[in-house]
Amino acid sequence: MSIAKTPTPPYYAVIFTNELSDQVDGYGEMADRMVELAQQQPGYLGHESVRDGLGITISYWQDEAAIAAWKQHAEHQLARQTGREKWYQTFKTRVAKVERDYGFNR
Amino acid sequence: MSIAKTPTPPYYAVIFTNELSDQVDGYGEMADRMVELAQQQPGYLGHESVRDGLGITISYWQDEAAIAAWKQHAEHQLARQTGREKWYQTFKTRVAKVERDYGFNR
Repeated sequence: MSIAKTPTPPYYAVIFTNELSDQVDGYGEMADRMVELAQQQPGYLGHESVRDGLGITISYWQDEAAIAAWKQHAEHQLARQTGREKWYQTFKTRVAKVERDYGFNR
Repeated sequence: MSIAKTPTPPYYAVIFTNELSDQVDGYGEMADRMVELAQQQPGYLGHESVRDGLGITISYWQDEAAIAAWKQHAEHQLARQTGREKWYQTFKTRVAKVERDYGFNR
């Protein structure tokens, strides 16, 4: 996992912060598949994902329409439903418009 | 670390994604101190931080003015300078306006 190579702002970030339940069978496969699928969607710009107890996954999107379309994707809808029923103890999703950025490379 | 208890949007998120260099002496103490200091700043709403190789720290703020004031804090400026000189291999900071959110608790 490395820093996403996003374009010049503005664009959107979907910040998904979560804690898993104790029923995680099938979770890893679903997570891998969702990354694979998301990367194929129109308007997908990149993602960053880290877990150490708390999980944070940020996906970057060109606009709100791209986020809405991905949310409606049938396989994603099934994953979201199973997440609520089984995998997640708690989560919060925040949709944010990235207004500016800056960076540093050694 | 748990999910930040943020208020109803709108508010701001500063998404700081980074990779450490091989010179990390003093980094942990600085990180702890910055959390302690940030929590004392006007307009601070919470933060979430996870590292597993890649580090993601998201701090939440009431408005742009609160972010600007924190960026000018003398001890934070010193930490940022040392980060560029020593601790970080690479980082990206994205400033985003959280427009909406939703969540789930089992």
